[in-house]
Amino acid sequence: MSPLAAPPSEPSAKAAVLCEALPYIHRFAGRTVVVKYGGSAIAAEDEQALSLFAEDVVLLRAIGIRPVVVHGGGPQIGALMARLGMVPEFRDGLRVTDAETLDIARMVLVGKVNRDIVGAINLHGPWAVGLSGEDAGFIRAEPRDPALGYVGEVASVDPSILERLLRESLVPVVATIGSDTTGQAYNINADSVAGAVAEALGAEKLVFLSDVDGISTDRADGSSRLSSATPEQLSELVAAGVIAGGMIPKATACSRAVSRGVKSAHILDGRLPHALLLELFTQEGIGTMVSAR
Amino acid sequence: MSPLAAPPSEPSAKAAVLCEALPYIHRFAGRTVVVKYGGSAIAAEDEQALSLFAEDVVLLRAIGIRPVVVHGGGPQIGALMARLGMVPEFRDGLRVTDAETLDIARMVLVGKVNRDIVGAINLHGPWAVGLSGEDAGFIRAEPRDPALGYVGEVASVDPSILERLLRESLVPVVATIGSDTTGQAYNINADSVAGAVAEALGAEKLVFLSDVDGISTDRADGSSRLSSATPEQLSELVAAGVIAGGMIPKATACSRAVSRGVKSAHILDGRLPHALLLELFTQEGIGTMVSAR
Amino acid sequence: MSPLAAPPSEPSAKAAVLCEALPYIHRFAGRTVVVKYGGSAIAAEDEQALSLFAEDVVLLRAIGIRPVVVHGGGPQIGALMARLGMVPEFRDGLRVTDAETLDIARMVLVGKVNRDIVGAINLHGPWAVGLSGEDAGFIRAEPRDPALGYVGEVASVDPSILERLLRESLVPVVATIGSDTTGQAYNINADSVAGAVAEALGAEKLVFLSDVDGISTDRADGSSRLSSATPEQLSELVAAGVIAGGMIPKATACSRAVSRGVKSAHILDGRLPHALLLELFTQEGIGTMVSAR
Amino acid sequence: MSPLAAPPSEPSAKAAVLCEALPYIHRFAGRTVVVKYGGSAIAAEDEQALSLFAEDVVLLRAIGIRPVVVHGGGPQIGALMARLGMVPEFRDGLRVTDAETLDIARMVLVGKVNRDIVGAINLHGPWAVGLSGEDAGFIRAEPRDPALGYVGEVASVDPSILERLLRESLVPVVATIGSDTTGQAYNINADSVAGAVAEALGAEKLVFLSDVDGISTDRADGSSRLSSATPEQLSELVAAGVIAGGMIPKATACSRAVSRGVKSAHILDGRLPHALLLELFTQEGIGTMVSAR
Amino acid sequence: MSPLAAPPSEPSAKAAVLCEALPYIHRFAGRTVVVKYGGSAIAAEDEQALSLFAEDVVLLRAIGIRPVVVHGGGPQIGALMARLGMVPEFRDGLRVTDAETLDIARMVLVGKVNRDIVGAINLHGPWAVGLSGEDAGFIRAEPRDPALGYVGEVASVDPSILERLLRESLVPVVATIGSDTTGQAYNINADSVAGAVAEALGAEKLVFLSDVDGISTDRADGSSRLSSATPEQLSELVAAGVIAGGMIPKATACSRAVSRGVKSAHILDGRLPHALLLELFTQEGIGTMVSAR
Amino acid sequence: MSPLAAPPSEPSAKAAVLCEALPYIHRFAGRTVVVKYGGSAIAAEDEQALSLFAEDVVLLRAIGIRPVVVHGGGPQIGALMARLGMVPEFRDGLRVTDAETLDIARMVLVGKVNRDIVGAINLHGPWAVGLSGEDAGFIRAEPRDPALGYVGEVASVDPSILERLLRESLVPVVATIGSDTTGQAYNINADSVAGAVAEALGAEKLVFLSDVDGISTDRADGSSRLSSATPEQLSELVAAGVIAGGMIPKATACSRAVSRGVKSAHILDGRLPHALLLELFTQEGIGTMVSAR
Repeated sequence: MSPLAAPPSEPSAKAAVLCEALPYIHRFAGRTVVVKYGGSAIAAEDEQALSLFAEDVVLLRAIGIRPVVVHGGGPQIGALMARLGMVPEFRDGLRVTDAETLDIARMVLVGKVNRDIVGAINLHGPWAVGLSGEDAGFIRAEPRDPALGYVGEVASVDPSILERLLRESLVPVVATIGSDTTGQAYNINADSVAGAVAEALGAEKLVFLSDVDGISTDRADGSSRLSSATPEQLSELVAAGVIAGGMIPKATACSRAVSRGVKSAHILDGRLPHALLLELFTQEGIGTMVSAR
Repeated sequence: MSPLAAPPSEPSAKAAVLCEALPYIHRFAGRTVVVKYGGSAIAAEDEQALSLFAEDVVLLRAIGIRPVVVHGGGPQIGALMARLGMVPEFRDGLRVTDAETLDIARMVLVGKVNRDIVGAINLHGPWAVGLSGEDAGFIRAEPRDPALGYVGEVASVDPSILERLLRESLVPVVATIGSDTTGQAYNINADSVAGAVAEALGAEKLVFLSDVDGISTDRADGSSRLSSATPEQLSELVAAGVIAGGMIPKATACSRAVSRGVKSAHILDGRLPHALLLELFTQEGIGTMVSAR
Repeated sequence: MSPLAAPPSEPSAKAAVLCEALPYIHRFAGRTVVVKYGGSAIAAEDEQALSLFAEDVVLLRAIGIRPVVVHGGGPQIGALMARLGMVPEFRDGLRVTDAETLDIARMVLVGKVNRDIVGAINLHGPWAVGLSGEDAGFIRAEPRDPALGYVGEVASVDPSILERLLRESLVPVVATIGSDTTGQAYNINADSVAGAVAEALGAEKLVFLSDVDGISTDRADGSSRLSSATPEQLSELVAAGVIAGGMIPKATACSRAVSRGVKSAHILDGRLPHALLLELFTQEGIGTMVSAR
Repeated sequence: MSPLAAPPSEPSAKAAVLCEALPYIHRFAGRTVVVKYGGSAIAAEDEQALSLFAEDVVLLRAIGIRPVVVHGGGPQIGALMARLGMVPEFRDGLRVTDAETLDIARMVLVGKVNRDIVGAINLHGPWAVGLSGEDAGFIRAEPRDPALGYVGEVASVDPSILERLLRESLVPVVATIGSDTTGQAYNINADSVAGAVAEALGAEKLVFLSDVDGISTDRADGSSRLSSATPEQLSELVAAGVIAGGMIPKATACSRAVSRGVKSAHILDGRLPHALLLELFTQEGIGTMVSAR
Repeated sequence: MSPLAAPPSEPSAKAAVLCEALPYIHRFAGRTVVVKYGGSAIAAEDEQALSLFAEDVVLLRAIGIRPVVVHGGGPQIGALMARLGMVPEFRDGLRVTDAETLDIARMVLVGKVNRDIVGAINLHGPWAVGLSGEDAGFIRAEPRDPALGYVGEVASVDPSILERLLRESLVPVVATIGSDTTGQAYNINADSVAGAVAEALGAEKLVFLSDVDGISTDRADGSSRLSSATPEQLSELVAAGVIAGGMIPKATACSRAVSRGVKSAHILDGRLPHALLLELFTQEGIGTMVSAR
Repeated sequence: MSPLAAPPSEPSAKAAVLCEALPYIHRFAGRTVVVKYGGSAIAAEDEQALSLFAEDVVLLRAIGIRPVVVHGGGPQIGALMARLGMVPEFRDGLRVTDAETLDIARMVLVGKVNRDIVGAINLHGPWAVGLSGEDAGFIRAEPRDPALGYVGEVASVDPSILERLLRESLVPVVATIGSDTTGQAYNINADSVAGAVAEALGAEKLVFLSDVDGISTDRADGSSRLSSATPEQLSELVAAGVIAGGMIPKATACSRAVSRGVKSAHILDGRLPHALLLELFTQEGIGTMVSAR
């Protein structure tokens, strides 16, 4: 396991951690936890981060929790396009996606990033199964804006193939390609897919492993992090401009998922080793938790 | 929960305890752990000990482990006999048990000690069920020595009623009365019953919560405790007189259970708070572990 | 089996009994019959009565009926208190029950009377399982009157542990101790418990084995026994003073159970050999039957 | 039910019959009893006999026994042939059966006698289902002797359709027509079919309801009836000529069935009202019982 | 198989038939098809017709369709009555049925015609099971008109025994005798029974194999056949006298079945080889189809 | 459906095709058919071929056959490498595969070819699920020759994830990447994978859709095609040099699969429209069939 820290040597300190963690282990057993794992976190230079993440996923699965991994891969798509001499075109910050770009995106997400995550988990045992939203047609997409080409939004999610895999104690790893009723594929924002999958599965938790340690009211002031928030509070913070940029889709996905039945959504700093374990099994948790009350 | 200790405040220290504990939690899920809880430990003056013990049992059950409690009650039997003006007769350290003494012993074990343990557990939820070996005839007894009267030995254990309760996530609490084929009841040594029950259930672990911290080669020297031993080593220690007195039946029960399929047997100091949790979920464990190799 | 009577030697007479009994055997197969067996009936001097009762219970079980035995034990509690030099205090005919008295009552009911009934049944096979209402918290109690101490009333019955045992063709034998939500035990009137258990199980029949042959409108006149009555008629007889004394709680329990779904309730003379069989399998039955119409 | 006899009025006499019968009711519950009901017994002039027989079958079914009825119909076949002006030809006591005779026999057995038995049972409830051995090909036949035409012997019995009906608590009523692998139908002796069906079902009992009260060593002396016999004893009696005529196939079928796994076979006087009940549920039984020891 | 036609030798032509048929095979798999097979079609002189019909039934069963055959037998009843010298009496075209006539009809339908169909199917494998409506009381009848004697109408159909056989991949062959609540048997029109059975089973199709190729608006003009019709259109055609005679009960049964949940009803020319296959597995079908729209 | 051919208009000709096909449909229902679909057949210029293939797969699935598609993608891998300016290196006709080449191969097979086949099938309904042999570790690989880099051979196949999908009527589409125990991926020859998957699934048939119409003894002479062969005959033909080049791995896979339990293996001309249907459902079949006798 991870060599990063030594456990406390005092039996009573250990017993205290256990007494704190066991009730959570009981409460989450059999529950589904959807984890959005960002494309940047998977970059080749950070192999240990992927390895630590895979270790957490394997530990959760071992004690009966049902993790689902959803991932993006923007940087990797850009890299292959560059190698092929293609010049990306952006409109309002979104990549314009023609047929060839879609083919590249699909190859990278399904054939590269997804495979790397599956491989990191399967080093521990044959448990991860890679999926694209096209498989069994489980992510139904619709175009977001004609001007953007094959950039899609989630129209619906049919969770039955995911549930089938979870029932067999397998770990679905989802690449965020969807298809419409004519079979046309679309590339979809991974934050939205993670939220929609969590909703469809009636997940206990939706966790965004990001590169900030949660939502802060003042980004310059580390101590201004919110440890918890309601969807209403998030709306106000967006309206007030406190939440901005790439944090907006995460905040929106959290709010939406919580208002549609997911018990809680979390934004954590995925760079903290074992962030998933600490969030799930300690009383105070880490990052920002969004829940109905 | 228990106010005895504060957990370490460092996230990385917590994460380390969790990384150490989770694989054990996974390994023992669904497994049966038979715990012998001594009569002396239940004396009225030590209500907090019973309460901490019940808390551990409840935590084990919560995470899918199947605990079975077996208890004695010698001091309590003696106390009621004294109140009734009866003078106990001992032969070779064993209480001679005539019909009236047996009636008293049965009332105390089944109607008093068993009830107190059931009550302590059920404070957390309606999970404990008290049983006497007479119920569904599950402990078949035979006389140990005619001169001792109704003092019995275990002839056989039919584990089906225990398994039924365990399947329903209930916690059997067993009073050590057995009966022969004519329906005659016998009082049986609780250490032997715990061992026989563990064998019959194919238990993962048999744990004796005693008042010493394991088996030592030199009782005067605390550092001489054996952290592990094989049945063969125990035989040698008994032959050499190193293991003596009340420790002999415990050592014998450990050896016998391990040689008949129980994975490991443990002698712990039951007075250490959360001894059960520390034994089960930490790498080094506590007390003395007896296993085949 | 019982040596009390010779069967008729005429085949046609035998055939007639069988033709009469078989439809009842069919009708009651798989149904639950709750039998209240009184503490006085179990006194040591009447061992044959207990043995005949156990034989009936075993025969019912054999043909697929599901008997549940509920018992009291007032005389036996008094006897032990006397031996311990305790002086019982009564208020309005009810024993004032302090903590020590409760301990004694529980020891006697759970550790002595319950054991004797379990033993008498298990002479035929390993089928009886003794239970106290504390087990799996299945009888929830509340105090009846603060002045009486730990004398309880039934607040609710969770029949799931009984149903589990019945499904396995085991015979629950219930001691009438209940507990409140803080785990405090209470002694409860056995007639009320029998009624509440029958209700909770949706029993086919509730049978009180008492020392009179049913309800009579004129106790001096044997021929005035009612062979059947409705709850309404019982209310009138109580109001008119015809039903009095210890017969009141039995009549009340009958009325209440019938009005809450038990098909019929019966008060029989438990001293008549095989009273249970005659009530269940003959057209005229015996004693007094209470039913909705 | 039957008006033939009054039950004894003494409770103790009734209780004695019940105590005697209940263990048998338990022992035979869920077991299969194959009853051969003779064609002569079903003649129109004896409607009450058929009605009493049907009542017994219905009572057995009600208490969980699984009756299977196998019947012949020689007299009824002869009657229709006579009406059609056909002259039966016999060889060694067996009817020579050409294609037309087979057609008549099949019409009478399947379309008349079988229907009358089904009708008599179904007066009580929709439980009887008439079957010919051709249905689902469950009785495979082979010719007995070319000279006899379509007179068959049992080659094999596939009990699955019978077991299916029995599992649904239905009562199969079997007409003794079988078919060979080319689909050709044959008329088969009903005693042999009853034996083969009992074997194939692993029946508890095979009962022949005949017009004698069992096997006697001296037919002139009623008191010479054997109450029990082994297959070996029957062989000796046949060899010695004591068993003769129409009793030979019954004795043979009894011996054969018992030696192939049927627990016991019985020859009773079917004219005794409720003969089936008396045989099954009384200690002494009636008629002659054939069993392995 | 049938020697009647050679398949086309062109692969592409074969592939085209398969592409046309496979979707129907999929659509009808697991569905129930009730086929009325007329008594006239079974006359002895036309053995090949019965054999081809049986072949179709066996092929349907093989690919997972659940066929149920319902048959009449008027000509055969008349033949046996004539041999017995009985003179049939008709009133308004319906046979007056006294007790003796009913006995004859039942013998012929259940003991002769039903057996012949069962035999023809079972030549291929042990799959057909003959049933009369009396079996398990599954066709409840009521008298049609006192003046007609034991001529019945369908009061209700309990499909459970049919469903049980279908679940086991057996083929029920139904003779159209029903019984009332007193057990009295009645002879019922086979067209009505076929319709009522299709309704009770929620059949996909009800098919009448008749001796015309469907419903024509002008019987003299072959090209006037309706390939499809609604129940309303049929009513108008009956009212206008276009549908007349023996076609009326078929048209009525079609309309009624369709309006009570059967997907479609068909009148085909049963003399066309493999009429059933052509109707089920080709786009255009044959005969006249009645459906809701 | 396909516009390629008109079905024959004669009912009797249609009936003949149906009578020929239905027994095969019955025989193959529920059976698994593994189809190797070549990378060349999927080239973009031949969209109709992929579309006709997908139609056949969908029809097979509809009638209860369980198709599994295994595909390669050599031409597509070469095309992307060319675009990236990479120069492939071959040794003995096999592509030397370094880490970067493997990454490209995996992206193309998993992220492009696999997706195109999944998309073509899912146009008909959400049934296809793409898999790489890494998913749930179901294809365990080992290196073929160190000089070739990451070119692997099949070490073992764990069919459980395929069986799970087949049980849910889904169609697995397999990209031929495997992984070793350290998680390292390998590119494996698709013919070998198809054979190993068929073995592991105990498939009924293994079908190679190639660009020749089977195995011929004289390639110049179309009429020399073998319609069937045994593994032994194939060995002789390989030894004699009659089977050569790219046909060798197909012949070897056929022989090996048949000798390990697959019922039959087939080499067909995949360019013939509906080749799969014609092979499965006509008496003569097409191409060359390899079977044990």
